[in-house]
Amino acid sequence: MQPSGLITLLTDFGTEDVYVGVMKGVILQANPAAQIIDLTHQIPPQNIALASFQLQNAYSHFPHGTVHLAVVDPGVGGPRSAIALTIPNGFLVGPNNGIFSGVLADLRQAGSSEICAVCLDNPEFWYTPNSSRTFHGRDIFAAVAARLANDDEFGKLGSPVRLEDLSTLNLQPCQLSETGILGTVQAIDRFGNCISNILNSAVQKRPWSCVFARGQVYPRLATYSEASLGCPLSLVGSHGWVELAVNSGSASQQYGLTLGESIELRWV
Amino acid sequence: MQPSGLITLLTDFGTEDVYVGVMKGVILQANPAAQIIDLTHQIPPQNIALASFQLQNAYSHFPHGTVHLAVVDPGVGGPRSAIALTIPNGFLVGPNNGIFSGVLADLRQAGSSEICAVCLDNPEFWYTPNSSRTFHGRDIFAAVAARLANDDEFGKLGSPVRLEDLSTLNLQPCQLSETGILGTVQAIDRFGNCISNILNSAVQKRPWSCVFARGQVYPRLATYSEASLGCPLSLVGSHGWVELAVNSGSASQQYGLTLGESIELRWV
Amino acid sequence: MQPSGLITLLTDFGTEDVYVGVMKGVILQANPAAQIIDLTHQIPPQNIALASFQLQNAYSHFPHGTVHLAVVDPGVGGPRSAIALTIPNGFLVGPNNGIFSGVLADLRQAGSSEICAVCLDNPEFWYTPNSSRTFHGRDIFAAVAARLANDDEFGKLGSPVRLEDLSTLNLQPCQLSETGILGTVQAIDRFGNCISNILNSAVQKRPWSCVFARGQVYPRLATYSEASLGCPLSLVGSHGWVELAVNSGSASQQYGLTLGESIELRWV
Repeated sequence: MQPSGLITLLTDFGTEDVYVGVMKGVILQANPAAQIIDLTHQIPPQNIALASFQLQNAYSHFPHGTVHLAVVDPGVGGPRSAIALTIPNGFLVGPNNGIFSGVLADLRQAGSSEICAVCLDNPEFWYTPNSSRTFHGRDIFAAVAARLANDDEFGKLGSPVRLEDLSTLNLQPCQLSETGILGTVQAIDRFGNCISNILNSAVQKRPWSCVFARGQVYPRLATYSEASLGCPLSLVGSHGWVELAVNSGSASQQYGLTLGESIELRWV
Repeated sequence: MQPSGLITLLTDFGTEDVYVGVMKGVILQANPAAQIIDLTHQIPPQNIALASFQLQNAYSHFPHGTVHLAVVDPGVGGPRSAIALTIPNGFLVGPNNGIFSGVLADLRQAGSSEICAVCLDNPEFWYTPNSSRTFHGRDIFAAVAARLANDDEFGKLGSPVRLEDLSTLNLQPCQLSETGILGTVQAIDRFGNCISNILNSAVQKRPWSCVFARGQVYPRLATYSEASLGCPLSLVGSHGWVELAVNSGSASQQYGLTLGESIELRWV
Repeated sequence: MQPSGLITLLTDFGTEDVYVGVMKGVILQANPAAQIIDLTHQIPPQNIALASFQLQNAYSHFPHGTVHLAVVDPGVGGPRSAIALTIPNGFLVGPNNGIFSGVLADLRQAGSSEICAVCLDNPEFWYTPNSSRTFHGRDIFAAVAARLANDDEFGKLGSPVRLEDLSTLNLQPCQLSETGILGTVQAIDRFGNCISNILNSAVQKRPWSCVFARGQVYPRLATYSEASLGCPLSLVGSHGWVELAVNSGSASQQYGLTLGESIELRWV
């Protein structure tokens, strides 16, 4: 695959420290022409599930051949391996701890078979031959991403990994009930919109009328502004998940919804 | 106008989610050579007035031909139109909800007549022909900004809009009194500096001595460090507005000043 | 020195306001080809010591010829001078208030003698001949950094400055005791890791077993994940400083460690 020269970064490093800046320095040393885009660095520390969710919502909107570097890595320096994957429209680089679960679920659902994985065990591609054991984001992942974005050979990065050896998270799926779908809130965005684990593909063939959560009804609408100011609604968000919202307000704050909250979508 | 290839982004999307990253992916798909600069994504959710203020303070410092994309958009998917404007030194792209009020006030004061506006109703320029109704930042504005930065024809973006049909905010102006100028605090920056709605142009022809707010005097000085440590002062800030500050401290915290606070500037 | 075209930014301006965006606009007006990387803008307002620490941890990871622009500047507009320095692998630009102390300490320890400094008193290199007295980040530092990144002559920026006239912070050094080293916590990162002022070079020749702080023992390990979940440890961090941590937790929160806290490292 022809690389786009683009590298996206997604971490739980925050922006108060220079960890992210240092990764960018390492990338630009190895590949001065690389273009680097931040997805987010505000993943709550060590929350692999949210990292997986955010990457799943972003990766498909980038040019073909983009390298997505994701590091939320509580096990850094331990037995978890460091990996890189080719996927149909780009590359993934990061720890083998389930952070790519969302993207892999997407690709599985699309029936994609063009996935290869390698373990990043070839020190020639690292920042220094003696990698630190506490900052693989700098010493392995940034250096490898820079080389991938420069069209270096994927196969040389290290030993092949079988797809069944890729870690994936045990995410609770939504469940069909007699009257609708039982799901949970898997993320809450800056606006307080509560994003469920119910995909548009699960509801687009059958009309649905609303979502229930904590005794509150969120009527189904097409846009936020169709609800009255301050009133609840549900819709299929731009990311493809059913979400609970309040027009010009925060569903999370107004109704006390939190991560993991049970919700129920109802058919008409 | 020859585009500079630069696109600035100003939103209320925050940096915890990947909404901004996704907009950048869409821009780079349409225009791989675009250079993207973040102005801020920390506008308080749905606060169009602060977005307008921040854009007004930033746009004139960019190269000729820069595209400024601004999205604070509580009415997304509703009747408000999506627009693009040419202004003397660049382009503006965003919702027609008053977000460009500050820039337009600037241009009006400068007597500029080189403003054209179009409604972004030509789907050929969108990310997908069927735009979502909840994320025009991605589906319309990012895609259009990318094309403008690539020198595509402004006129093809959609139907012309008359300048009198551009939404503008009803911002309270400052008022001349017998002894000075009555104004309000329109923004508070990270340092706790309280930025008024009194422009330098309103005070530069007549000497003034201080600003009053909540019974506290802020003597006029030229720099923060001319006040004693922890002491109040007022000055014309680098943005051109009269501001209230504390040397090495926060005027907002120390004196309890909040947004919308009434202030009075006094002539000598 | 051949510039890399790269400019890094480190400030206390935050990301809520457009101050950083405006600096980037000024840079790109003077040098459209410059590539700009954010180190951090979240330095606590006016905290020069933390700015110095963060820059010290970052600068060496960038390509040769990179310009590092750092602005934490409580004395802006006052008597402190504005300076630029050449160092062996790049350039520094900012106020002469101690913000470069960490980098200079590093270079001194490495025995480097290739440092030159100038005072930025030549207005030809400024954004406007009449610089504001409140925002040198925009009016002097950004404009000068852009020119340096474009290979303009360092010597023309202004009058030479003797190295002994560079401001440096009076940082408390760590102290050798009979049983180990007495130090302090000089920074706390997003993960709650408490980073001491004890450098790896001070401990690498003699085996050490643990660090004490507030009556708690932090056993020495090589990685975070070697400690049990939620248990304390100490290690030499990727930045080269001894740090106190908790596996998958926050040492700062769990044990109430704060900036300036006294710690003691113990030899075996």
